[in-house]
Amino acid sequence: MIIVTRPHVTDPELDAIREVVERAGLQTHLSRGEHRTIVGCIGDERMLAEVGLSTLPGVESVIPVLKPYRQVAREFRADPTVVVVGEGEGASIGGNQLAVIAGPCSVEGREMLFSAAASVRAAGATLLRGGAFKPRSSPYAFRGLGEEALALLAEVRAVSGLPVVTEVMDTRQVEIVAEHADMLQIGARNMQNFPLLSAVGDLRRPVLLKRGLSATVEELLLAAEYILARGNDQVVLCERGIRTFKTATRNTLDVSAVPVLKRETHLPVIVDPSHAGGKSWLVAPLSFAAVAAGADGLIIEVHPKPSEARSDAEQSVAPGEFGDLMSRLRAFAGAAGRTMSAIPDNVPVDPGSGAGG
Amino acid sequence: MIIVTRPHVTDPELDAIREVVERAGLQTHLSRGEHRTIVGCIGDERMLAEVGLSTLPGVESVIPVLKPYRQVAREFRADPTVVVVGEGEGASIGGNQLAVIAGPCSVEGREMLFSAAASVRAAGATLLRGGAFKPRSSPYAFRGLGEEALALLAEVRAVSGLPVVTEVMDTRQVEIVAEHADMLQIGARNMQNFPLLSAVGDLRRPVLLKRGLSATVEELLLAAEYILARGNDQVVLCERGIRTFKTATRNTLDVSAVPVLKRETHLPVIVDPSHAGGKSWLVAPLSFAAVAAGADGLIIEVHPKPSEARSDAEQSVAPGEFGDLMSRLRAFAGAAGRTMSAIPDNVPVDPGSGAGG
Amino acid sequence: MIIVTRPHVTDPELDAIREVVERAGLQTHLSRGEHRTIVGCIGDERMLAEVGLSTLPGVESVIPVLKPYRQVAREFRADPTVVVVGEGEGASIGGNQLAVIAGPCSVEGREMLFSAAASVRAAGATLLRGGAFKPRSSPYAFRGLGEEALALLAEVRAVSGLPVVTEVMDTRQVEIVAEHADMLQIGARNMQNFPLLSAVGDLRRPVLLKRGLSATVEELLLAAEYILARGNDQVVLCERGIRTFKTATRNTLDVSAVPVLKRETHLPVIVDPSHAGGKSWLVAPLSFAAVAAGADGLIIEVHPKPSEARSDAEQSVAPGEFGDLMSRLRAFAGAAGRTMSAIPDNVPVDPGSGAGG
Amino acid sequence: MIIVTRPHVTDPELDAIREVVERAGLQTHLSRGEHRTIVGCIGDERMLAEVGLSTLPGVESVIPVLKPYRQVAREFRADPTVVVVGEGEGASIGGNQLAVIAGPCSVEGREMLFSAAASVRAAGATLLRGGAFKPRSSPYAFRGLGEEALALLAEVRAVSGLPVVTEVMDTRQVEIVAEHADMLQIGARNMQNFPLLSAVGDLRRPVLLKRGLSATVEELLLAAEYILARGNDQVVLCERGIRTFKTATRNTLDVSAVPVLKRETHLPVIVDPSHAGGKSWLVAPLSFAAVAAGADGLIIEVHPKPSEARSDAEQSVAPGEFGDLMSRLRAFAGAAGRTMSAIPDNVPVDPGSGAGG
Repeated sequence: MIIVTRPHVTDPELDAIREVVERAGLQTHLSRGEHRTIVGCIGDERMLAEVGLSTLPGVESVIPVLKPYRQVAREFRADPTVVVVGEGEGASIGGNQLAVIAGPCSVEGREMLFSAAASVRAAGATLLRGGAFKPRSSPYAFRGLGEEALALLAEVRAVSGLPVVTEVMDTRQVEIVAEHADMLQIGARNMQNFPLLSAVGDLRRPVLLKRGLSATVEELLLAAEYILARGNDQVVLCERGIRTFKTATRNTLDVSAVPVLKRETHLPVIVDPSHAGGKSWLVAPLSFAAVAAGADGLIIEVHPKPSEARSDAEQSVAPGEFGDLMSRLRAFAGAAGRTMSAIPDNVPVDPGSGAGG
Repeated sequence: MIIVTRPHVTDPELDAIREVVERAGLQTHLSRGEHRTIVGCIGDERMLAEVGLSTLPGVESVIPVLKPYRQVAREFRADPTVVVVGEGEGASIGGNQLAVIAGPCSVEGREMLFSAAASVRAAGATLLRGGAFKPRSSPYAFRGLGEEALALLAEVRAVSGLPVVTEVMDTRQVEIVAEHADMLQIGARNMQNFPLLSAVGDLRRPVLLKRGLSATVEELLLAAEYILARGNDQVVLCERGIRTFKTATRNTLDVSAVPVLKRETHLPVIVDPSHAGGKSWLVAPLSFAAVAAGADGLIIEVHPKPSEARSDAEQSVAPGEFGDLMSRLRAFAGAAGRTMSAIPDNVPVDPGSGAGG
Repeated sequence: MIIVTRPHVTDPELDAIREVVERAGLQTHLSRGEHRTIVGCIGDERMLAEVGLSTLPGVESVIPVLKPYRQVAREFRADPTVVVVGEGEGASIGGNQLAVIAGPCSVEGREMLFSAAASVRAAGATLLRGGAFKPRSSPYAFRGLGEEALALLAEVRAVSGLPVVTEVMDTRQVEIVAEHADMLQIGARNMQNFPLLSAVGDLRRPVLLKRGLSATVEELLLAAEYILARGNDQVVLCERGIRTFKTATRNTLDVSAVPVLKRETHLPVIVDPSHAGGKSWLVAPLSFAAVAAGADGLIIEVHPKPSEARSDAEQSVAPGEFGDLMSRLRAFAGAAGRTMSAIPDNVPVDPGSGAGG
Repeated sequence: MIIVTRPHVTDPELDAIREVVERAGLQTHLSRGEHRTIVGCIGDERMLAEVGLSTLPGVESVIPVLKPYRQVAREFRADPTVVVVGEGEGASIGGNQLAVIAGPCSVEGREMLFSAAASVRAAGATLLRGGAFKPRSSPYAFRGLGEEALALLAEVRAVSGLPVVTEVMDTRQVEIVAEHADMLQIGARNMQNFPLLSAVGDLRRPVLLKRGLSATVEELLLAAEYILARGNDQVVLCERGIRTFKTATRNTLDVSAVPVLKRETHLPVIVDPSHAGGKSWLVAPLSFAAVAAGADGLIIEVHPKPSEARSDAEQSVAPGEFGDLMSRLRAFAGAAGRTMSAIPDNVPVDPGSGAGG
C-alpha cells in the first residue's frame, strides 16, 4: 500500500497516518518528494483493507500494491488447473484439448433435448448445456421447466454420455441441481450473488462462473475466490460479453479478457459467443476469435429449430450451422496449438431408450 | 410489434412471417414502402415475446412498440404510490415530504448504531439504514454481523422510533430479515436476482430496490415488476450510480434517471448519493442535485466516526457534516416544492435503555 | 512516480530501473516490502513521461503521483477565474451570478434568430448561443448557414446587447469566427482536436470548451491546458453528458463532474442540459440539478418553434417553456447561494433595426 | 420511418402528424392497434431527417427504418472494395491477402525509422506506419517531428519500397501530408472532425479511418460516408478499441465490430491491436483474434527499442517479437482462408542510401 499525501501535509498529520498503519501491523517508510510525501506501507496490506485511510487528514490517495485475490492467482499455483467434468473419464476443461459445451438455451422438452444432444455430440461437442431455471428480465417470460428439466438432463446424460452443465440461481436449489448436473453454472447476473458463490463453494462439483455484464476482470477473479475460499477449486471462468455504449451487438465480447485472465489466473477460461454477440451469424466469427486469443473452450447455444426456441432464439445456431462451425474451428484450434476431440462414432442418442438410462 | 423486412423479401417469406404472427393470435398489416416492406402486428405483442421472429428468413429487424412492464407503469395507476414504512404512522416515501434514510453502512456494534441513530434523527432523517448482511467484492472483507445486527436494529428502532431498512441477499434469509426490519433492501448486485425478487414479492413489507450498476431504466422497472407481479406493490426505486468509463468518482450518478423514472412509473424514486459518488465530500452536492431533479428522497451513509468505519469509510459522512447537509437541503427541497420533516425534540436515543425497548 | 516491481525482481533489473530514472534527473528511493519492492522517484516526474518505464524487465506497474495538468489546477491559481464575455461590461461566467447562455441550436435565418434573442433576453439569459457551422453525424444533414450566420449573430448582438457564442470546427475558420463572435465554442467532438485547441489558445477571446462524449475529467482538463498553455486563460468548461450503456436519454448527464471539476480547477464550469438529456422535457430538471450541484451556469437550446427546428428539434425548448424554467430556476440558484440577473426592461429586439445596429 | 403514437392520440393530432409527413413528400399509412396507432411513412425517409417529428403532440417515438448511410453500404456496391496503396503495384488492403501495416508510433529520427522499416519489411509487413504529427492528451508531451518526419517517411519509402501511412490532424496540413504519404490516417480523436473528413474526401489518395473511442458502428460508417460523399472511395476502416468501464486494458478491442462491419459495408476493415490492448504482450493474441474474426488486415506498432520509444512505449513490440507474431499469424490467416505476403529477399534497407532514394 502506498499513501500519497496532499501538498502541504503537516507533521502531525503524517504521524497520525503512520500510527494507523503501524497499529495494523505494518511498517511505514517515508519518502519526501519535491511535491508530495509518500508513505510506503510494508507488510500484509490486506490488514489495511478495513481501515479508512483515505479519510485521514492529509491523505490525497491510497494506492494498493498487492492484488486482492490469492488462491485464484497464478502465483498461488504454478500449473494450470484442469477441471474434469462428469464421472469416469469425464470431459476436461483447461487442458490442451479445446472444450466445447453446446446445447439449447433452455430445456423445452424431452424430444428437443435429445435431438440437440445427438447433434452437438455428432459435431464434436464434449459437454451438453441446457437451462432448467432461466433468469429472465421480465416476470412474464418463460422461466424454464425447473425440476422437470433437471430430470431430463440426467436422462440425456445417461444416454449420450455427455456431462451436463446447467444454471443454478437460488441457494435453495443448489442441492437439487448438484444432484442432477455435472457442472453448475453461475450466470452473469449472479456473479456477485455472494451467498450463492459460497454455497457452490461448499460443493465438490465443478462450477462454471460467468462474468457479470459490468464486472471488471478483478471482480470476476474475486467472485471465483469466494468459491475457492470455501474449498472448491474446480472453477471455470467464462467471458460472455460486457455492456458498453455499443448497440450493434447484444453485448460487447471482451476478447482481450482472455489473455488477461490467462496471465492472472491458473483457472481455465472459456468464451460464450452466443450471449456476447446475440446473433446466430456472429457465433462462428466470435468463436474463432476466442480460440485465437487463447480460450480453453467455448459454450455455444444450439437449438434443433432456432425459430421455435422459447428463449434466445436470435442467437441460437441450428445443428447444421454448428457442424460447419466445428469443422472450420479445427484449423483455428490447430493454429492456437490445441487439439479438438475426435468426432464420435455415430451412435444415435435415442430418446426412446432414455428412460432406462 | 413492427417487423421490418430485408430489401428483396419474397412473397413466401412474407407469408411465413404473417403465419407465425397470426398463429400467436395477432393480426398483421402490410405496408409496402419504396425500400422496405413493413409488417405491423396488431394485438397483444407480448404473445410474440417467445417467438423467434428475427430468425425467420426475410426479417431484418423486429421493433417492439409496447413497453414490457405493466403494473409499474404510470398508465396502470393514475396516482403516485406512497409507501409507508414502519408501524403506526410510520415514515412515508413518495408523498410531498422528502424522505431521508440515513445511518451507517454496516451495523458494527450497539454503541455506534445507537449513536448513529441519535444523530441522524436529530438532524431530521425519518428512517434508519444499517447493514446486517454486507455484499463485499472480496471474500476476505468484513461481511456484517448478520443476525446479531438484525437484533440491534430492532432494538434501536424501539428506542428511536425510526423505522429501519436493511439489505437481504439470500432467499433463505428473507423470513428472518422481514421479522426484524421495516423495509427490505435489494442491493444493486441483486437487482436481477429473480428468486430473491419473487421472495420479497410474497411479503407484505416495503421493499427498497436499488438499480444495478449496469441496469437500464427498463430493466430496473422489470425487476420491480417481478415484485408487484407477486402482489407486493410497496416498492421504492433507488438510483445509486451506474458504471461508466469514468474513474473520477466511484460510480456515475445518473441524475436524469430520476425524471425519466418519475415519468414512467407511479413508484417513488430515491437517490443514494453515497454510493454514487463514493467520496464524503460529494454527498452534499449530489444530494442537492437529486432533490432538484425531482427525487422523492435520499439514502445517505452516516457514521459516527467515518475513519473507523469497517466498510465504505471513504463515502460516509460524519454526524456534523450530515447536520449541515440537512440544513442546506431545506432550501433545495423548498425550491422543488417539497417539505422536510420537522426536527424532532431532542429526546436522546440512549443505548442503555435499549435492551428493554 | 512510483514503480512497483514484479515479485522476484533481480538486483540487475533494479539497477537498470534506477539508472533510467536517474538519467532523467530524478532521485530514486527503494522500499523493499514483503511481497514487492517499490522504487519511489523524487523530482519532476514529468521528465519520465516519455520514458518507457513499464517496458523495463522487472517492472509490474508505474503509478504517477502528480496530476498531469498545471495551469488549470486550483493549486496554480488561488482565486476562481471569472470569464468576461463581450465588450463593455459584458457578461460574466464564474462569478456569484449564475450565467445563462440560451438560443437556437443553429441560426436558421434572421427572423428566427431575432425572435429567439428577444425571448431569451426577456427571460433573463445573459448570453446568446447560435450555431453557424454545425457538426452533424451525417453528411446529408443540415450543416448550418456558415458565414451568413456569423453576420447575423453580429447583427443580433448589436441590437440585443447579448454577447454571442458560436462553435468553431476548423482551424481555417478560427479567424473569421473570432471576428464575429464574443466567445468561441469547441464542441464535444473536437475536445481533442489539438490543432484547434492551440489555435484558440492563440486568441485573446473567451473559449467555451465542451467535454467529449467519452472524455475523462482529466482529459477535459488537459484539453483546457492546451489553451492556457498558449496564453489564453479565458476558458469555461462545459459538462454536456457522456456516452454510457444507457439509452433512455441521449447522453448521461454526469452531474458529479461539476463538484469534481470545481475542486480541481479554478476555471468556471457550466452544464448543457439540452444535449445531456436530448429531450425538451428533461431540460428543466437537469438545469435545476446542475445548479444544485454547483454549476456556474447553463447553456440551453431555445427555438421559437421547436417542431420546425432544422437540428436538435427534440431537445429544444420553446420560449414559453424557457421562461417557466428561468422562473423556477431562481429558487434553486438562491438555494445554491447564487444570484440571477434581473429581467431586463422589455426593450424589444427588433429585426428591422438590426441592419443599422 | 415508423411513428408510434401515444395511447390516446386524438384524430386532429394524427392529422397534423400525417400532414407533416406528406408535406415532406412521403405517403402515410395508418395501422390502428389495440394499444397504439402506428403511422408508417412510405418514401424517402431521409426527407424527414430535419423535421422534428418527435416533438409533435401525440407522438411517442419515431423509428427509422432505413440506415442513414448510402455509399458505404453493401447494397450500394456488390463487390468488396480493394484499396491499393502506393505507386506501381502498391500494397492492397481488402483483397484475399492479409494486409499488415507496421512501424513506429512516431518517427523519432532517421536511424530508428530506417531500422524499423527494415525489420518490419523483413518480417513480411507490406506497409509502413510512422507518426509525424502526434495527437497527445497533454500539451507537454512529445508531439512528433512534423514536416521533418514527413520527409523521412518519403525517403524510407523510396529505399524500402514500402508505401507509408501517416496521420493528418489539421485541415491546413492535408496538402503537405498528401504530398509525402501514400495513405492518410484520420485518428480516433478526429473521426468526427467533419472539415478534416471533407478535406481528405477531396483527395484521390487512400484514407485509413480509425474508429473513435466511443463511436458506434453507425457513426463510423457515417464518418466514412463523409469521405465517399466527396468522391474519394479509397477508405479503409480501422477498429482500435473502444472505451468501456474496464481498466485492465487501455481500451476494449471490439472484435465483433469486424464481422458487423464486413456485413454492412464493402470497405476493407482492419484492426489495431496495439492501441486496443495498450500492452505489448497483448498484441499477438489480439492480432490472431482479429484475423480469426475476419479482419482484412492489421496495423501494429513496432519500435526498434520499445523502452526508448518517445510515445506508446508500453504497447510497442520489438522487431523480434514482431517476427514471431508474423510467423504464428500465418496459421491463423490460413484458417481464415487468407494468404500472407511472401517474406521478401533480405535486401537491407540502408539509411545511408536514403538520401539518394
